[in-house]
Order: sequence, then structure tokens, then C-alpha cells
Amino acid sequence: MDFTSYTFFIPVIGIVGILAAFIIYQAVKKQPAGSKEMQEIASSIHEGAMAFLFREYKVLAVFIIIVALLMVFAPGLGVKTAAAFIFGAVSSVLAGFFGMSAATKANVRTSEAARSSGLAKALSVSYNGGAVMGLAVASLGLFGVGVLFILLGSPENAQYINGFAMGASSIALFSRVGGGIYTKAADVGADLVGKVEAGIPEDDPRNPGVIADNVGDNVGDIAGMGADIFESYVGSIIATIAIAATAGAATITTLTPTLSNEAGRSALMLTPLMFATLGLIASLIGVISMKILKNSDPAKALRYSTFIGAGLFLIFAFFGVTGLLQVSVNVFYAVLCGTLAGTFIGLITEFYTSGSPMMRIARASKTGPATNIIQGFAVGLESTIWPILIICAAIIISFQLAGLYGIGIAAVGMLATVGVTMTVDAYGPIADNAGGISEMSGLGHEVRKITDNLDSLGNTTAAMGKGFAIGSAALTALALFSAYAAAANVTSINLTDPYVIVGTFIGGLLPFIVGALTMTSVGKAAGKMVEEIRRQFREIPGLLEGKKGVKPDPKRCVDISTSAALKEMILPGVLAAVMPVLIGFTLGKEALGGMLGGATVTGVLLALLMANSGGAWDNAKKAIEKGEVEGEEKGSEAHKAAVVGDTVGDPFKDTSGPAMNILIKLMSIVALIIAPILANL
Amino acid sequence: MDFTSYTFFIPVIGIVGILAAFIIYQAVKKQPAGSKEMQEIASSIHEGAMAFLFREYKVLAVFIIIVALLMVFAPGLGVKTAAAFIFGAVSSVLAGFFGMSAATKANVRTSEAARSSGLAKALSVSYNGGAVMGLAVASLGLFGVGVLFILLGSPENAQYINGFAMGASSIALFSRVGGGIYTKAADVGADLVGKVEAGIPEDDPRNPGVIADNVGDNVGDIAGMGADIFESYVGSIIATIAIAATAGAATITTLTPTLSNEAGRSALMLTPLMFATLGLIASLIGVISMKILKNSDPAKALRYSTFIGAGLFLIFAFFGVTGLLQVSVNVFYAVLCGTLAGTFIGLITEFYTSGSPMMRIARASKTGPATNIIQGFAVGLESTIWPILIICAAIIISFQLAGLYGIGIAAVGMLATVGVTMTVDAYGPIADNAGGISEMSGLGHEVRKITDNLDSLGNTTAAMGKGFAIGSAALTALALFSAYAAAANVTSINLTDPYVIVGTFIGGLLPFIVGALTMTSVGKAAGKMVEEIRRQFREIPGLLEGKKGVKPDPKRCVDISTSAALKEMILPGVLAAVMPVLIGFTLGKEALGGMLGGATVTGVLLALLMANSGGAWDNAKKAIEKGEVEGEEKGSEAHKAAVVGDTVGDPFKDTSGPAMNILIKLMSIVALIIAPILANL
Repeated sequence: MDFTSYTFFIPVIGIVGILAAFIIYQAVKKQPAGSKEMQEIASSIHEGAMAFLFREYKVLAVFIIIVALLMVFAPGLGVKTAAAFIFGAVSSVLAGFFGMSAATKANVRTSEAARSSGLAKALSVSYNGGAVMGLAVASLGLFGVGVLFILLGSPENAQYINGFAMGASSIALFSRVGGGIYTKAADVGADLVGKVEAGIPEDDPRNPGVIADNVGDNVGDIAGMGADIFESYVGSIIATIAIAATAGAATITTLTPTLSNEAGRSALMLTPLMFATLGLIASLIGVISMKILKNSDPAKALRYSTFIGAGLFLIFAFFGVTGLLQVSVNVFYAVLCGTLAGTFIGLITEFYTSGSPMMRIARASKTGPATNIIQGFAVGLESTIWPILIICAAIIISFQLAGLYGIGIAAVGMLATVGVTMTVDAYGPIADNAGGISEMSGLGHEVRKITDNLDSLGNTTAAMGKGFAIGSAALTALALFSAYAAAANVTSINLTDPYVIVGTFIGGLLPFIVGALTMTSVGKAAGKMVEEIRRQFREIPGLLEGKKGVKPDPKRCVDISTSAALKEMILPGVLAAVMPVLIGFTLGKEALGGMLGGATVTGVLLALLMANSGGAWDNAKKAIEKGEVEGEEKGSEAHKAAVVGDTVGDPFKDTSGPAMNILIKLMSIVALIIAPILANL
Repeated sequence: MDFTSYTFFIPVIGIVGILAAFIIYQAVKKQPAGSKEMQEIASSIHEGAMAFLFREYKVLAVFIIIVALLMVFAPGLGVKTAAAFIFGAVSSVLAGFFGMSAATKANVRTSEAARSSGLAKALSVSYNGGAVMGLAVASLGLFGVGVLFILLGSPENAQYINGFAMGASSIALFSRVGGGIYTKAADVGADLVGKVEAGIPEDDPRNPGVIADNVGDNVGDIAGMGADIFESYVGSIIATIAIAATAGAATITTLTPTLSNEAGRSALMLTPLMFATLGLIASLIGVISMKILKNSDPAKALRYSTFIGAGLFLIFAFFGVTGLLQVSVNVFYAVLCGTLAGTFIGLITEFYTSGSPMMRIARASKTGPATNIIQGFAVGLESTIWPILIICAAIIISFQLAGLYGIGIAAVGMLATVGVTMTVDAYGPIADNAGGISEMSGLGHEVRKITDNLDSLGNTTAAMGKGFAIGSAALTALALFSAYAAAANVTSINLTDPYVIVGTFIGGLLPFIVGALTMTSVGKAAGKMVEEIRRQFREIPGLLEGKKGVKPDPKRCVDISTSAALKEMILPGVLAAVMPVLIGFTLGKEALGGMLGGATVTGVLLALLMANSGGAWDNAKKAIEKGEVEGEEKGSEAHKAAVVGDTVGDPFKDTSGPAMNILIKLMSIVALIIAPILANL
């Protein structure tokens, strides 16, 4: 049986998704953009974000060109890998650019919708803004991998497709790290002077750092997050193709009993792409269902649109596996396993960041900032338990179902409906921006209440999205790791071999180094931001007093964040790209395997710790503001203590934590890329 | 050639060491103990510490008896392992008891010496108090392992000796965790109400929590630290014996080319004990040399006494290896490698906790507690880099020199002069206590200056001691890990096997769980302490105002710390003992190997992060107090921010961080103990 007739559907569905994203983008742009003042603020944010993106892309272009040239001349890689690499990088850039353009149009239109039409309309506009990003990520990823699969989808050529994942990964690391530094330098700096020193509210128009803070939400939480998920998505698909391409005859016979060995291998290579295609169709329906859901409670509406996407995907997947491709139903169960694991990790994250553990932090604020921090850190440590056990269960169950191939499939299952999950993720920062714009342009209490409602919901979805990003990164990294071991012809990565143990230690160390670098960068950049904001308050007469017509100079702050982010993203990015090569060629391919294992374990643990403690600190502060801690309120000593926790949590959850996901994926991909060279040493 | 004639020297030297410790103890006791008030305070501390120790030992006795009974009936372990286990536990208890008795005598005598005779005498008394602990740890360890070696030192019987290490390890975990929770509950609680709320100085006699705080220094930093190092010491020796007992013929021939295979194996099994014996002799000379050194600068005196011990040991070791036992000189180089690695890790720790990285934290305090915490955390993350690279270098070099045996020998080399290094470690809390007693009994500024000088030196030695404890724990755990793999007959712990990866994830998770448990325990207990101290300030009239004759009720605070520590130490302790058994018998012996690897990597990283950030936060606060940060002083906003960092660092460096070392060692030992059972499954 020949499956090649199906493969043309894959990029076609990708194009359909891109068109859908484009139509939604046009619809968002057509919404009213509010008063002149609102439009001015929004255009400052838009320009700042775009300016950063272009400067970032210039730096990335240099990196991409250098690496591509190295690939061209590396034995076993050559022009095909280099071309796939550039294609992957460009696709990721396009998704980020497209999604952020939409987000920076949707933010002000959400404010205006909240002002003129109320909650349902505001939800709809912000959701649609996010949907452009969600669909762009899924569609461009599917289109890219689909096209490459048509060109190179044979067992002999499939390894060249890996370049696409590495392109995506490189963009992701720099975007995530750069965006993370940008957003938190601005956020921490603006808060330290504004909220703590000057005692003015968040997003107050007098604060020169507020525009930079809002730009940061876009470049960090939208472009950065999008690149992260784009990478997991294509990484999981490509790793699974690679595992299928090198799978043993016994595995193939077990998983495709009715097919010949050759046809079975083709079917298994095609399966992850089929899941992605079905997942995109299901996601499109989930996104469209918001048209009806928007009138219900926003939290429920967001949850249902995700559930519709996931439910439909599972139904499609069952028939796709058993009917279309004649693959063992076990492969469907592996997909189910991944989908469930992703959902459970999301729910656990929600519990830790907004349930009783978060309230422990809020109550600990009563005895001051020190106990708030100790308790927050303890909660962060504790929050790693269930996600890790869920990941372990997913590994063992999917392995029992379908071998190493099953682990890859579980990762694909977690990520197949990325079109809708990423929509919900991207919705959060849009709502956050809408709140900022409403505050800055003085839209009044009622409007702010709507945007606050949408924003606080966005915090929960953001925390869940982070848990999900980490879980998917773990499974994707493991799938890539398995693919690496097969491609490098490593029979055993034996922990009793001292070189492997040393590799594991060094791998375990790398997330700590990247954490140190990124936190230091945020600290330094925030310090500069503090000085600049203090200077403006000091030197611009009437600014702090709120004299009519006196405006701050936000451009200087935007510049500080931009320069810091571009400078500070280089070292972590280069480290992640270079270390696998260094260890692989000095300590050997087994030690490199140990390094990937060590980095995955500590990377996932640190990412969970940082994302969850950060999210919980943020919500603990909000809980006090909402009066949920007896005897405390905004401005009380406990609230001040909670603000300290929130500020500490900022780089945890938005800079260092997210950098871990990409670090482990990028290193695994680099290892997979150089595997053919290491195999011949 | 028969080496058994030498073996009798080993326990004999152990007895000599015990006698020396006893003589020093008597000499300390003979020193004047100061005024009636000082003696009263000291006896409160002594009684509190002893009461805690006895209650703790009662709980431990139950655990020890249960485990010993299980061992008696377990196939492959039996009465011999159980007896060695009890012997190990009792030896550790004796060392802790003996050392702490001396410490709680030396503290007040140090105060009195500072008052009546000045710095040199005070240094000498506190150093001798520490020497009792240092020599007790080394001598009892050497005596115990030496006796067992005479009884069971054949390749067939050597596995029973492992029980001794497990006994030591069990006591260590409970002592470290219990002591750590005790000391930090008291410290954090007393500081939060005293320093922060009531604005009274540290160790103020009005504060009801101060006695508990000083008791805590003894049970945590002396008894707990002693048990920790005792365990590393015997663990490294026993692991190396185990590796030699199961080493292949080729290894033996390479390392003992002039001997027959049988004699060579005996020589290799004896070598770690010979190093320990020579190390104890060298340590004794180092300790005695303080008699001359005490008149020089205290920092130099402490350093030189350590260097004399280490230098002499290396000279002895060279002749011992090449002359006495006819073992390859490579084994000496492996010892040298361990000694150097230990020294370098200590120096790196000193740099991070009192050099320029610490000053970065001090300066970050200028922008408030949040930036202090962010910077401290970044420094902690960064401080892991060099120690890990040094450990990796030590692993590779010692492996190249003498195979897996070399890794064990490197650990022994790091720990051989524990007699003198532990002396310096134990000196710190004695000086700290002396400062507390001076303050509480109002000995005046000049006396306090001397004790402060000794105390701040103690902070540096404590930080270095922690770095050293972590480094030695890492190498010891790896040596135990190698011994486990050989004893369980595991040929490969293959990271591409999903069960091994799951084991690695679970292992990596365990330090996070223990961290969460211990930090939560400190938080809870400190909360209770805060309530009790607030109650006393509220209900005892005239207490806070310092009315003459009005005294607090420290017993209630001591009770809170004691109960909390005893209750909260159970779960982490049982977890560490049970997890290896659980994973070994459910997921298999390879997965258990993965678990040990994962736990060692994240345990060492977290321990370094927590110990170093905690030490640096502490010193950053002190730097501001000393006026080393321009424009800031005690009581300024930056100082308040630094106090927050110091308080957060307390459980990091003294509870959770140190618990990691023992966790990884105890789990490795439990695995080694059950290895013969797993081998037959």
C-alpha cells in the first residue's frame, strides 16, 4: 500500500490554516481601535515590539547564516540539512511576526470592545488575536514539515528534515531568552520605581517604563512563547519520524501487522504528520466554536474551546490510526496518553498556582517578605512532584504500548491541538495589554474591571500553558534523545561509565548556568531601567505630580530593554548550541547522551520550580489585593511582602524558567543533527 | 605477602585518636566558665541540646531496631549486616554526643577566655572544643571500620561491612534534617520577631527564642554536621573496600603489579584504611600545631593547621602507597586528586560566599529585598559551575589513574584529614555560641568584638566546610554507586532504556521533594515560634521594655523547636530509606541505578545552590553592617533588604541544602545493601 497519495493533504491543510489565520487577522483589524489617545499608546507598543523584533531578527540572521554555512561543509549534513535549517528558522520567524502583528492590533481593540460593547465582545476580540498566533504556529509548522516530508520523506533522506527542527529551535532559544529578558527588565524596573518607590499604580501613564513593560508582554509572552511551542510542535513530529525511519523490523511488524515492512515503516513515518493534520483541523473547529461560546463565562468558554479541540482530535485520531493508516490501535492509546498527560499537568499547575498552595504563600506574607519567599520556594519545589510522576507514567505507558516510537507519539499527542492551546496562551498577554492600555488612557473603572477579569483569567491560562510547555518539552526532548541514540549508533549510554556520569553532571549543570545568566541579565537590565525612570521623574518637571500635558519619554526605556535583551541573549544561546558539539567531540557520543539526559532532568525540574513558584507568587499578591487573606488588603504590610515575592517570581516564571524548555530541546536537536558525524568517528 | 599484620594498627590508631579527643575534652572542661550568669545561660543551652539529643536518639532507636530486624531476615544480609548496621549507628551517635558535650562546654569558656585573656586564648578554647568533635568523628569512624575489617575483611565477607555505613547514614540523615529544622525554626522565628518586629539586636536576652537559637547551633551545625561528615568518611572508605573486593583481575594486576592477584586484592582493600589511618595521624599533628599557631592571626592559624594536616597526610600517603603496600603510585595520585579537588571546592565556595559575587548581592540590596533575592539566587546558581567542573575533573582523572577504584580513592583522599577539617568546621558554631553568651550576659563591647571576630571567621569556615561536605558527598555517592553496580551485577545502566530514564527522573525529583518538605517544616515551625515569642512579649509585663529582673521563658521555645524537629524529620528520612527499595523491587535494578545517578546530579547541584546562596546572603548582610557598601549601614533600607535575604538563606544553607548530601549518600548505601538481593532476582 502506498501512502504517498495522502501526503499532499498535509501542506494543503497547513495552507488552509494559514488562510484561516489571515482571515481572522483581517477581522480583528476591522474592529474599532478606540480614541486617538488609545491608538497612540497602542502604536507606541506596536512600534516598540516591531522594532525589537527586527533588530532581533538581524542578530539571528547572522547566527543562522554561520550555522547554515557550517552545515553545508559538514560531512553527512550538507546543503539539504542547511536548507531545511533555514526553512525552519524562517517559518518560526514568520509565525512569530504574524502572531505579534495580530496581538498588537488586538490589544487596543479589546480595550475598545470592553468600553463600547462589554465582556463578550472583548473576550472575542482578544481570543481572535490569540488565534492568529495559535493557528500560525500550527499551520506554518505543519506546512513546513509536510513539504519537507514530501521531498525527503524516505527512510534514507529523513535525517535531513531534522534541520528544520534545529532552525525552529535556534529561533526559539534566542526569542525566548531575548523576549524574557526584555519583558522582565521592563516589568521589574517599572515596578521597583513606580509601585514601590513612587507609590503609583501599575500601568500608570506617568511611568516611563510602562510602554516597555507592555511591549515586553508581546515580545516575551507572545513571540517568545510562540517560538517555544512552534519548536516543541515540529520537534516532536520530526523526532517521531526519525525514530520510525530507524526502527527495527520487529517494532514495525508489531505496530503495523497487516502491512509489509516497507509500507509499515512509511505508515509509521506518516503517522505523526497525520496526527498533526487532524489536530489542526480539530483546533480550527475549536477556535471557531468561540463564536458561540463567547457569551458564556469567559473561563468556561476558554476551557470548552480547548476541550472541543482535544475531544475532536482524539475521535479523528482513533479513526485515522485504525482506518486510514492500518496502524496498531496501541499507537492511538499512546496519543491518548500524551493528551491526558498534558491535560493533567495543566490542571496540577493550575492547582499549585491558584489553589491552596498559592494561599499558603499569601498567608505566609503576614510574617514578612522572608517567609513569603521561603514558602514560595517550598511550593515551587513541591509543585514538581506530580508533573514529574505524570511524565514518568506517560513514558512507561507509551513505551509499553509502542516502544520508543510510543514516547514520540505521546509527545505529538500532547502537541497536536497546539492551534487551540496556543490561542488560549496568546490570549493572556493580549488581555494584559488591553488592561494596560485602558489604564494608561484612563478608560475608567468599569472598563478596567472587564479587562482585569480577562487578564486574571489570562494569568491562569498562562500558568497552565507553561506547565504544558514544560511537559511537552520533556517528552519532545526524550523523543529527540531516542532519535539521537539511534542515529549516532549508540548501543548503550551507560551510567557506570565515568564519561557518561561526567556528561550527566555537565548536562545537569547547564540549566543552572542558563538560569544564572538570565537572572543576572534581568537584574542588570532592571537596574539600568530603574536609573532611567528615576532620572525622568527627577528631570522632567511635573511628571510625577501628574501635571496635565507632561509626558514621560518611553523610548529611552524601550531602548534599554531592547539593547539589554539583544546583548544578553547571545551567551545562553551560543552555549546551548555549542555544548553538545563540544562534549560530543571531546568526551564522546555516550557522554553527550549522558549530557542530554542530565540536562533534561534538571532542566524540567528547574523549569517547573521556576514557572510554578513565579505563578504562585503573582497570584498570592493578587489574592491579598482581592481581600482573600483575612485582615490584609492592598497596601498593607503583607501586601508589600507579597509584592516582593511577585517581583522575585517575575524572572523565574518569564525569563529563566521558560529558557530551560528550549535549552533542553535545542541541545537534543543539535545532538541529533551531529549524530551521523559522531556515528562515523 | 600478608598484610593482616598491619590491620591491627588501624583500630589502635583509632583508639589513640579517641584518647586524644578525651584529653582535649578534659582540658577544655578545666578552663574557667565565667560568671554565674554566664554559666546559667550556658547550662540552659547545654540542657536544651542534650534533651533534644536524647529525644532524637529515642526516635532513631525505633528506626534502627526495625531496620536491623528487617536485615536479619532479609536473604543475603542476615545478622552480620544487622550487627554492622547497629555498630555504625552507635558509633555515629557516640561521635555526635561526645562532640556536642564538648561544644556546649567550650562555648561559655570561649566567652570567658575572650573576657579575661583575649583573642589567642579564646581562639584556642573554641578550636579545642571543635577538635573534640573532629577527632571523635575520625577516630570512631576509623576504629569501627578497622574492627569490622579485621573481622570481615575478606573479599567474600566484605559486603557485610556496608551495614556500618548504612547505620552511620541513617543517623546522619535524621540528625542533619532534625538538627537543621531545629536550628532554623529557632533562628528564623527569633529574628522575625526580635530583629524585624521588636527592633532588638540579635541574641538579646529579652528574646525568648535566643536560647533555642543557640541550642540549634549545637544540634544542627555540630551534631548534624558531625554525623554528615562521619557518614561521608566511613562511606568513602567502605565503598572503596567494596570496589576492591569485586574488582576484576586486570585492574588488580595493573594497580599492584608486584603482587599476586590475591595479595593485590588484599592490598587494595586495605589501602583506603591505610589512608584513613595516616590521615588521622596527620590530623592529630595539625590539631596539636594550633598550640603554636594560636598567637598568629586567627584566619591564618585555622588555615595553617588544616594545611599542616593535609600536607603531612600527602607525604605519609606517598610512602604508604609505594613503600608499605606496594600499590601503584597512581593510587597516590588519585588521593592527591581528591585532596586537591576538596581544597579547590573550598576556595571556590569562599570566593562566592565572601568575594565579589557576595558583594553583588550586597549592592543589589540598594533597590530592595526583591533584587537582593534575585541576585542571591543568581549567585547561587552560578556558584555551582566550578565545583561541578572540579568534581568532573576529579572523576575523569582518578578514573584514568586507577579505574572506578580511583574514584573511591579520590573520595577517601578528600576525607582522610577529616580530623582537622571537621575541627575547623565545629569551631565555627562554638564561636557563634560564645558570641551569643557574651551578648546575653552583657559582657560588653570589647569582648563582643573578639567573639564577633571569631564568629565571622566561623562563617567563612562553615561555608567552606559545606562546600567540602558537598564535594565529598558527591564523590562518595559515586563510589557507592559504582560499588552498587558491581554488587547488583548490573552490566549497564542504559539511559536509552525508558525504565532507567524514569529512574533518573524520580531520582532527580527526590532532592526537590526533600527540599520542599524541609523548607515547609522550617516555615511551619518558625511560624509557631513567632507566635510564642509574640505571646511572651505581650503577656510578660516589662519583658520587652527590659525591666530589671524580668526574664523570658525560653523553655517553651526550646520545646517548639524540639517537637517540630522530631516530627518533621521522619518523612524525609523514611523517604530516603524506602525509595531505593521501592524502585529497585518495582522498576528493577537498572532503574534504581538511574535513580541514584539522577539524585546525585540534582542533589549536588541543589546543595551547592542552597549552601552558597545562603552563605552569600548572610555575608552580604554583614558587609552592609560593616559599612562596605557605600552609603549604607545597619538599619538602612538596604540593610533591611539584606536581612530578608539572610532569613531566606537560613533554611537554604542550614536545613535543606545539607539534607541533600545525606539523601544521596543514604540512598546509595541502601542500594548497595540491597544489591545482593537484587542481583539474585
